[in-house]
Amino acid sequence: MPYLAELDTPAAIVDVARMRANIQRMQTRMDTLGAHFRPHVKTTKCLPVVRAQLAAGARGITVSTLKEAERFFAAGVTDILYAVGMTPARLPKVLALRRQGCRLKIVADDPAVADAIAAFGKARDEAFEVWIEIDCDGHRSGIRPDEKERLIDVAQRLAGGGMRVGGVMTHAGSSYELDTPEALAALAEQERAGCARAAGHLRDAGMPCPAVSVGSTPTALAARGLEGVTEVRAGVYVFFDLVMHNVGVCRIDDIALSVLTTVIGHQSAKGWAIVDAGWMAMSRDRGTARQKRDFGYGQACAPDGAVLPGYVMIGANQEHGIVASVNGTDERIAERFPIGSQLRILPNHACATGAQFPEYHALHADGSTEVWQRFHGW
Amino acid sequence: MPYLAELDTPAAIVDVARMRANIQRMQTRMDTLGAHFRPHVKTTKCLPVVRAQLAAGARGITVSTLKEAERFFAAGVTDILYAVGMTPARLPKVLALRRQGCRLKIVADDPAVADAIAAFGKARDEAFEVWIEIDCDGHRSGIRPDEKERLIDVAQRLAGGGMRVGGVMTHAGSSYELDTPEALAALAEQERAGCARAAGHLRDAGMPCPAVSVGSTPTALAARGLEGVTEVRAGVYVFFDLVMHNVGVCRIDDIALSVLTTVIGHQSAKGWAIVDAGWMAMSRDRGTARQKRDFGYGQACAPDGAVLPGYVMIGANQEHGIVASVNGTDERIAERFPIGSQLRILPNHACATGAQFPEYHALHADGSTEVWQRFHGW
Repeated sequence: MPYLAELDTPAAIVDVARMRANIQRMQTRMDTLGAHFRPHVKTTKCLPVVRAQLAAGARGITVSTLKEAERFFAAGVTDILYAVGMTPARLPKVLALRRQGCRLKIVADDPAVADAIAAFGKARDEAFEVWIEIDCDGHRSGIRPDEKERLIDVAQRLAGGGMRVGGVMTHAGSSYELDTPEALAALAEQERAGCARAAGHLRDAGMPCPAVSVGSTPTALAARGLEGVTEVRAGVYVFFDLVMHNVGVCRIDDIALSVLTTVIGHQSAKGWAIVDAGWMAMSRDRGTARQKRDFGYGQACAPDGAVLPGYVMIGANQEHGIVASVNGTDERIAERFPIGSQLRILPNHACATGAQFPEYHALHADGSTEVWQRFHGW
Repeated sequence: MPYLAELDTPAAIVDVARMRANIQRMQTRMDTLGAHFRPHVKTTKCLPVVRAQLAAGARGITVSTLKEAERFFAAGVTDILYAVGMTPARLPKVLALRRQGCRLKIVADDPAVADAIAAFGKARDEAFEVWIEIDCDGHRSGIRPDEKERLIDVAQRLAGGGMRVGGVMTHAGSSYELDTPEALAALAEQERAGCARAAGHLRDAGMPCPAVSVGSTPTALAARGLEGVTEVRAGVYVFFDLVMHNVGVCRIDDIALSVLTTVIGHQSAKGWAIVDAGWMAMSRDRGTARQKRDFGYGQACAPDGAVLPGYVMIGANQEHGIVASVNGTDERIAERFPIGSQLRILPNHACATGAQFPEYHALHADGSTEVWQRFHGW
C-alpha cells in the first residue's frame, strides 16, 4: 500500500473517489433516462474498474478487441458486444468464445460480411448474434439511417442464413468535436433518432430488432431523452480527461486519471521544469490542440491533485516532459518545482494515456495506493 | 513461422533485410568517421534487434529507462548509458545494477543532483560514473557549452565527492525539425563543436573527460566530421520512419517497421477503406503534420511492402483507421481494398508505434515471420 511519494515514476494514478463518482453519475443518468448502460472497457482494460462499473448497475460490456472479450470473459463477464466491424478471419475466435458460453455479439455493416458470417455460422451450426452498425454522423463506419435497402439487405442475409439479428448500434464519434450544450444535445438527438429510425426500418420489414444501442461519452451526458433506445455505451466517462473538459461534459476536478512524475531538471532562464514523464507516459495524443483551450501534453497538478493554474506540459520527448507556465517565463521555476519533487499531469485523452502503462496505481482516500493491472496489445 | 496472411491484425512487422541494411549503413558510417557507436535501444526495447546492432559493431547501448537497463543487462549487455537526467530517488536501482556488474553510466546537469549522487555514492563506497549533459541546441536538458562555470562546478562536485566524471554527452533533438542536408550538417557540426568545447572546459580545468558522446539519427547521418567526439548515439535509424524520410535521412523504402492491418469495411461514397489499425496501433504521433509532407497516420503499402502512392491513413479512432487517397475520392476503394484484404502502414514515428505492441513480427526474406518480444512500461 505505498503512498504516492514512494512510487517509481512515471506512474498512472487513478483517483478512486473521482472514478466512483463518475461511474455513479453516468449510471444514475441512464437509470433516470430509462436505458441500460453498457460501458466500453477499451478505456481502461482493467478488471477492478469494470467490476466497479458492473457493481453500479451496468449491463454487460463493450469491447474494441477480441483480446478484451477473452480477458473479461475469463473474469466472468458474459454479455459482451464487440463493437468493431467483423472481419471473416476473426470468426473462429468469436466461435470459440461463444462455445465457451460467452454471449458475444458482433457487428456488421456490409452485405459481403453478412454473407461470410452466415456461411461460417451455418457450417458450424452456430447462430451468431449480429448487431448492424449505423452511421449516425458520418464520422466512421456504418449504414446511414436513410440507406434503408442496404440495411434490410444486410439483415436479411444474416437472418436468412440462420443468424440472429440482435439489434442496431451506433456511435456519435463526432461529438468529440463539439463544445456547447446545445450542439451536444442536438447530436445526441441525431444519434438517438438515427438509430431508432434504423430499428424502425427493420421492424417495418418484419424483422425483430431487440437492441437499439447508442453512445459516446458526450452524447450520453447530453441526451435529453432516449426514446426508442434500449442501451447506451460510453467509455472515457469513467476517468474523463482534458478533451472531455473542453467538450464541456466534466470539470477538471472530475478527471480521475493523472500521471505522477518527478522533476529531474530545469532550464531556469526559460522557465522550464524537466520531468520524467514524456510522450511515452502521456501518449502522443494532443487532442486539446484543436479545442478551445490547448493544454499541451497535460495540465500540471500538485501531488495532492490541486490544479496548478497555467502550468502545463508544453513539450515532450520520449522520456522527458517540459512543464512551464503559459503565462510568461517563470524564472523561479526551480524553486517552485525542485528536483526530486513530484507533479501529477492530467492527460488530454485517458484512453491513450492509460494504454502507455502496464498498470494503474489506484489512489484511495487515505493516500494509500494499490496496483490495478491493465493489459495491452491484441 | 507464419506468413503475413496468417497473422492476427494489427501486427507490428519488422522487415529484417531493411533493418540489417539500416544497421550496417550507420555502423559503416561511424567506422569511417572514427567514432564508436552506442545505439539507443528505446526505439525497439527488443533483444534480437539490439543483438543485431551489437553484432554489427556497436559498443554498448543507450537506454531511456532503468527498466531498459535492467532487461538488457540481464541479457548480457554490460556497457549501458542511462541518458535521462538522474533523480536521487533512482540511485538505489543504479547502485543495485552496478553491484551486479553492470557498467551503468548516469547523467547529470545540475549541481544539486551532483551533490546528491556524490553523497549517496560516498556513503555506500560506490564511485558512480557520471556523464555531464550538454545542451547543444536549446531543445531540452543540459548545460550550455558557454556555461563554463556551471559545467566545472558540477564536475568538481562529482569528482570531489569521489565520483568518476566519465565524460560529456549531448543530443541535438532539434534535428527533427530540419529538412535540408545543409541545415542538418550545420546542426551536426554545432552538436559536435558544442560537446567538444564542453570537454575542453573540463580538461582545461585539469579534469579528465574520456567520453565525448553526441547524437541523434539525423545528425549522425549528416555529420561531415567528428573531431573530438568519441562516440555517437542514435535510435530510430534502425527502423526509420516517415518523419525521418521528411527530414531527409532515409528513403521510404528504407523504413523497416510497418503495421499490418485488415480492411474491415468501406464508406465507398467517401472513398474510405476502414481498417483494423487505429491510433492504438499507429500511436497518436502525427509528427509529419508539421513537415513538408503530411502522411496522416501513415503511408499505406501493399502486403509485399510496395508503397501505394497517395493512399494514407487520413484518420484514426482507437481501433479503426480510415485509409483513403489524398488525390481525390476513390469511388472504387472497395474493389481496390476488399474486406479481409491486408495493408501495411508505414508509421510516422517508429519509437511511438512500436511501443503500442507487445511484440514485433520479424519478416524474413522467404516471407516467414517470427515473434520478437518487446517490453513496455517503467
